[in-house]
Amino acid sequence: MEEVEKGALRIGWAQSHMPVLLEVTKSMVERRSLDGWRVGMAMHLEAKTAVLALRLRDAGAQVSLTSCNPLTTDDSVAEALRERFGLQNFAERGQTREDYYGSLHRVLDTRPSLIVDDGGDLTYLLHTERTDVLEEVRGGSEETTTGVVRLRVMEREGKLRFPMIDVNEARMKYLFDNRYGTGQSTLDGIMNATNLLLAGKHFTVAGYGWCGRGIALRARGMGAHVIVTEIDPVRAVEAKLDGFEVMPMKQAARISDFIVTATGVKDVVSEEHLKVLKDGCVIANAGHFDVEISKDDLEGLSSSKKRVREFVEEYLLDGGRKIYLLGEGRLINLVAGQGHPVEIMDTSFALQALSVHHLMKHHGELTPKVYPVPQEIDMRVAKTKLRTMGVRIDGLTEGQREYISSWEAGT
Amino acid sequence: MEEVEKGALRIGWAQSHMPVLLEVTKSMVERRSLDGWRVGMAMHLEAKTAVLALRLRDAGAQVSLTSCNPLTTDDSVAEALRERFGLQNFAERGQTREDYYGSLHRVLDTRPSLIVDDGGDLTYLLHTERTDVLEEVRGGSEETTTGVVRLRVMEREGKLRFPMIDVNEARMKYLFDNRYGTGQSTLDGIMNATNLLLAGKHFTVAGYGWCGRGIALRARGMGAHVIVTEIDPVRAVEAKLDGFEVMPMKQAARISDFIVTATGVKDVVSEEHLKVLKDGCVIANAGHFDVEISKDDLEGLSSSKKRVREFVEEYLLDGGRKIYLLGEGRLINLVAGQGHPVEIMDTSFALQALSVHHLMKHHGELTPKVYPVPQEIDMRVAKTKLRTMGVRIDGLTEGQREYISSWEAGT
Amino acid sequence: MEEVEKGALRIGWAQSHMPVLLEVTKSMVERRSLDGWRVGMAMHLEAKTAVLALRLRDAGAQVSLTSCNPLTTDDSVAEALRERFGLQNFAERGQTREDYYGSLHRVLDTRPSLIVDDGGDLTYLLHTERTDVLEEVRGGSEETTTGVVRLRVMEREGKLRFPMIDVNEARMKYLFDNRYGTGQSTLDGIMNATNLLLAGKHFTVAGYGWCGRGIALRARGMGAHVIVTEIDPVRAVEAKLDGFEVMPMKQAARISDFIVTATGVKDVVSEEHLKVLKDGCVIANAGHFDVEISKDDLEGLSSSKKRVREFVEEYLLDGGRKIYLLGEGRLINLVAGQGHPVEIMDTSFALQALSVHHLMKHHGELTPKVYPVPQEIDMRVAKTKLRTMGVRIDGLTEGQREYISSWEAGT
Amino acid sequence: MEEVEKGALRIGWAQSHMPVLLEVTKSMVERRSLDGWRVGMAMHLEAKTAVLALRLRDAGAQVSLTSCNPLTTDDSVAEALRERFGLQNFAERGQTREDYYGSLHRVLDTRPSLIVDDGGDLTYLLHTERTDVLEEVRGGSEETTTGVVRLRVMEREGKLRFPMIDVNEARMKYLFDNRYGTGQSTLDGIMNATNLLLAGKHFTVAGYGWCGRGIALRARGMGAHVIVTEIDPVRAVEAKLDGFEVMPMKQAARISDFIVTATGVKDVVSEEHLKVLKDGCVIANAGHFDVEISKDDLEGLSSSKKRVREFVEEYLLDGGRKIYLLGEGRLINLVAGQGHPVEIMDTSFALQALSVHHLMKHHGELTPKVYPVPQEIDMRVAKTKLRTMGVRIDGLTEGQREYISSWEAGT
Repeated sequence: MEEVEKGALRIGWAQSHMPVLLEVTKSMVERRSLDGWRVGMAMHLEAKTAVLALRLRDAGAQVSLTSCNPLTTDDSVAEALRERFGLQNFAERGQTREDYYGSLHRVLDTRPSLIVDDGGDLTYLLHTERTDVLEEVRGGSEETTTGVVRLRVMEREGKLRFPMIDVNEARMKYLFDNRYGTGQSTLDGIMNATNLLLAGKHFTVAGYGWCGRGIALRARGMGAHVIVTEIDPVRAVEAKLDGFEVMPMKQAARISDFIVTATGVKDVVSEEHLKVLKDGCVIANAGHFDVEISKDDLEGLSSSKKRVREFVEEYLLDGGRKIYLLGEGRLINLVAGQGHPVEIMDTSFALQALSVHHLMKHHGELTPKVYPVPQEIDMRVAKTKLRTMGVRIDGLTEGQREYISSWEAGT
Repeated sequence: MEEVEKGALRIGWAQSHMPVLLEVTKSMVERRSLDGWRVGMAMHLEAKTAVLALRLRDAGAQVSLTSCNPLTTDDSVAEALRERFGLQNFAERGQTREDYYGSLHRVLDTRPSLIVDDGGDLTYLLHTERTDVLEEVRGGSEETTTGVVRLRVMEREGKLRFPMIDVNEARMKYLFDNRYGTGQSTLDGIMNATNLLLAGKHFTVAGYGWCGRGIALRARGMGAHVIVTEIDPVRAVEAKLDGFEVMPMKQAARISDFIVTATGVKDVVSEEHLKVLKDGCVIANAGHFDVEISKDDLEGLSSSKKRVREFVEEYLLDGGRKIYLLGEGRLINLVAGQGHPVEIMDTSFALQALSVHHLMKHHGELTPKVYPVPQEIDMRVAKTKLRTMGVRIDGLTEGQREYISSWEAGT
Repeated sequence: MEEVEKGALRIGWAQSHMPVLLEVTKSMVERRSLDGWRVGMAMHLEAKTAVLALRLRDAGAQVSLTSCNPLTTDDSVAEALRERFGLQNFAERGQTREDYYGSLHRVLDTRPSLIVDDGGDLTYLLHTERTDVLEEVRGGSEETTTGVVRLRVMEREGKLRFPMIDVNEARMKYLFDNRYGTGQSTLDGIMNATNLLLAGKHFTVAGYGWCGRGIALRARGMGAHVIVTEIDPVRAVEAKLDGFEVMPMKQAARISDFIVTATGVKDVVSEEHLKVLKDGCVIANAGHFDVEISKDDLEGLSSSKKRVREFVEEYLLDGGRKIYLLGEGRLINLVAGQGHPVEIMDTSFALQALSVHHLMKHHGELTPKVYPVPQEIDMRVAKTKLRTMGVRIDGLTEGQREYISSWEAGT
Repeated sequence: MEEVEKGALRIGWAQSHMPVLLEVTKSMVERRSLDGWRVGMAMHLEAKTAVLALRLRDAGAQVSLTSCNPLTTDDSVAEALRERFGLQNFAERGQTREDYYGSLHRVLDTRPSLIVDDGGDLTYLLHTERTDVLEEVRGGSEETTTGVVRLRVMEREGKLRFPMIDVNEARMKYLFDNRYGTGQSTLDGIMNATNLLLAGKHFTVAGYGWCGRGIALRARGMGAHVIVTEIDPVRAVEAKLDGFEVMPMKQAARISDFIVTATGVKDVVSEEHLKVLKDGCVIANAGHFDVEISKDDLEGLSSSKKRVREFVEEYLLDGGRKIYLLGEGRLINLVAGQGHPVEIMDTSFALQALSVHHLMKHHGELTPKVYPVPQEIDMRVAKTKLRTMGVRIDGLTEGQREYISSWEAGT
């Protein structure tokens, strides 16, 4: 199948499975609410992102788009967007760092009034090299934990120059996207890259945040024996009582068949771990940046390196140990898989679209801070999701409402 | 075995499995930090509670104790406490409502300077009938969700008269006590009361809060086919994506073999559900009060009622349907089981003991509000728990610390 | 509640949850098919067994009954059987070995024409000390793996003197009774005996037969980290790929918080393991005989022994290690629990009743061998079970039947 | 990456993860045990199969190879085999039925003395159109359930003309290959083909044989709500007590988001089910032949059909319902995935290689029947697998061996 055709089909398929996004943006599109607004997006450019971008355009926005990662673009989708849908985008899989930033600059060259960022690189540029565009920007939204961590530091240091909505902390986002989106797609990426068995394997997950626990759960679901590493004592106790083994990475490294990082921190797998890593271990990263597994350390410690399968690099370490790095240490679910399941992005992007709409309407009342997604948007997306799944739930009766509003009723 | 001996053994057994409580209170006991303080406790009076009470006494406090529920006292423990340990308590299993409140009054008669409450009845009395004791009270702590809900209403209405620490919201509490404590012990109680098979049964859990999700998880772990009912749309989506079925109670009632309520709300199983309840359904409650299953409605709809097994009442409804109510609709894990596993109460009560200590030291700085457990107490308990389990974890390196404190590092 | 009342209620409760047994024996009872037959039973004497015994009596048999284990009798049931139902039985909880065998003798004194055995002690006596009764016996049925192993040896050695039906190997038996019956009830027994947490614990299961895998599955379902020990390489690979850890007992002993044996072999936990056993380890047995954990070795290695809780003996080993033996190493699900869930025994005992009926009708055609449960009995019980659960299934169409009867249809 | 390079890497990668096959065939290769033997293979031609074929060639055999399914060939591997390894093969992805059988004929044209079949098409040809080659054939082995079902019919009808080893029924085969191989790879194929979420979906598995239970388990592991359909009452009870829902396909069809067939029977999803199928349902097949979902019925009932994504055909049914058929109803794990995980085929193919060796040595003693894999081969593969996983297990002591060989030891 031709690339552009393949991409167009993927976009169509995704859209047909994104009823929540379509429904919550229906009136935006009918009223062309975003007319006159320029939206600059830096998001993993694949089918679901294309649907969001097209939907924002249908709502009147002038959209420019690039990826937020050099290795996560689905070229078939990027091409289809350009050729079939006439939507400007600057992404390409396998960009150099220079080209990657070049593409971000091209998005900013459109002088966006609103941005949709994922990981914070676009926001970073706006606050450093591209302060020339700052005055245009009314606000933005951020998709992922790593981006939010950066925003929080900027906010704390008083550096943030426009309001940002933290989409990541919406319940309808992190409970599903970070956990079950990352969970399923990371496993999918690993299976696709390796064709290896998961059942019975020691599978270490670094980090027991929302992403990490999704990966751990799904790895267990495939029959793996899962180990968790953590730095937070409470999360460590939780992982342990969730039935996982908990130990330091140095100990896990000796026995792991797979290691997947999902921490948001650099050097989670570094020299001291690589030195004791089990022969044949497969390492991959599910965190936003490719810093969690130290590629420098890996290069430094290995006597040779070769491509042994699509998405798999073999490093030869001392003692003849072979280590397999997947997808160059970049987001394995997007590099070797197809990213989060469509329905996951349906709700995440419903939040994004409504956040963009909220910024458009309320930017005047907002100051340069990090804002949560308004509670009513979160609830609206939840209710719409239930409806599209055909799930009905109970409501409180009047008597129940009174009961929980009283402190007098006791034994 | 004699009751008093059985109770003494249970206390000893519990204590030998509560290393976290023992360790974090070690210096309190050595220094007799609570000398001169009167602690009034209303908690399910069973072995683990006895250990906490004795530990507070060892730290110098004058402790008086009763249960926070008429049906959850372990009489063997209550008796052993009195006869073997000389610790005053007023609890007895199967108290009338009048006797139950009478016991609470007797605790208050000791004019406690600090209280440890569970569900809020003691606090309620202090703010209504026993305002005479109010001036003595420097503060207190509350153990459970229901109590905290009541406290929040009191706080909002400006009724609260002394500082209360919300132990329930500590991470080391709700993640484990509410979820895994309730989860394991509720299943234990149901199995003990019924000797029925769980595998393959339709098992409905009302409420997907921390308790509800623990019960759902453990019921699934025993092979049940679990249904969740909820009123919160986000939680409903979560339950659904966690792999459970989600539906209104009225629909669940028609197909359920078991229904367990864990909502904190009244009338969760009421007339409209009872009318369609599946023949043979077993209903039980895991929430604090016995209001979740409407016993009035059950009595009203049934033509006869009889005890058919210890802890099991059979109600005969129209159409010849037989419904089995466990433990009179009171906390099934304590009525027909032995309450939370010991290790769960070890950490919960470590938080309680440190909260009492914190109140003792800092009450002067506190106002009549609901306070969280100080973060350092939560962390201390977590670290101690890890140590007692023999689990070591990673720490951040200097480089990692810098990395996550910077917003500049990107792709 | 009085013992006899408690026992009577338990029997009534069990019967009301045993629709399969009732249905498949309906015509036997109506026709009093067993008139003139004397049935001698040696089975764990508790509520479900009582229902079987009463049902056989209702079908006309003269039934005599004792337990097949000195520690598994539910005295309340035994008493109720005698006092309320007038059914002769010789069991009592906590019999000495001498009294236990005495009771078996009393059953044989009734000169049974058919026996229902569980574990093989009754059969053993018939072939050794009580050959005087042999000529009366037309056949029998055996309930459990251990008994069948003994029967197979007898058959191989040409010692068997009458036909025995191996109920254990019916699919409707071992898939459910051994696996899910033992699984649920063993966990129930352990929780009841200890009130300890299972989540996050190292829980070792010795033996990955049908019982072992049921226990392993349910322990995992309660959040434990499960280790399996095996002697069969294929089963070991299976346990590993089922996601459990597999290692020799000596290694498992060092890290286990719980060890449960389910092997049918003696000395599975013996001196070499006890010497390295983790401090605080709880050990229990789910196998038929109390030989799997070597009590001799335990006594020999310990400097003291005391009862520290109902069903729990603490042994003090070198280095101050404390080891907790549950239920004197006897079937923990019956000693500290209530035995298999009712519905499990419903199908197992339906097989038993139909096997007794089959022996009655066909003993003339049978020789002294071990026979499987006739396939049509297995299927009848399965279909009846589906019906009582309200489950419907598909059937083969004519075309499908043809398809699978042909070897010509290919790609 | 070029196809031939990609294929070569896949073969190399597979080989490096197949230590069991390599080890058990070591002496065969050293001694060139198969010198002078012609092996004709019809197996899914992908990387792992290539490793087996090459290994047999290294052991001296003259190997000819084609696929056993028109749509499961990995063209990159086929090409690499030809161009890099000089191994004759006749497979190509997407063959017409005619070409497919043409390739089988070409394998038979080499007049094989031994065959390795998968599904029975090669065996079928030998017994019908190609009886000319029969006299050369000393025996063969069959890989899969469907092939064995056909062989058993042939054997029963007295049609089988040479001995066949039933590799499928080796414990080291069906427990892992059918269950965990099919389980993981089917999920992988579905995720790859659809990028849809599994969590919370109604996922129906038709057939609860070894393949079906693997799929059901893994679907649950990804968070799906799994329904099982069956025709065997015992398996239906088992599925139910394993915690799945069990119902007829007609009922399941109304609520399923996914349906996967794994029955070995035709028309499992046919007109009556398609008529009520839920809008948007994704249907796929994991059984050997593409007959389980009736494509005729699907074509007959639909007003249009179009490709909507790679591997996905959309059929428009009455009421505007859209149904998605994956991979033309052929083995989805090979069509849209990469087939079973490498380690699974490692043990399955170790059994195959040793079975070929066994046939070579013992064909003279064998008659035209279906033979099991010799027990010692099964055990050897199990032991080797344990060793390669680094897993040690217990053995029986002398005393234990005696114990289980005696029927005298009782209570």
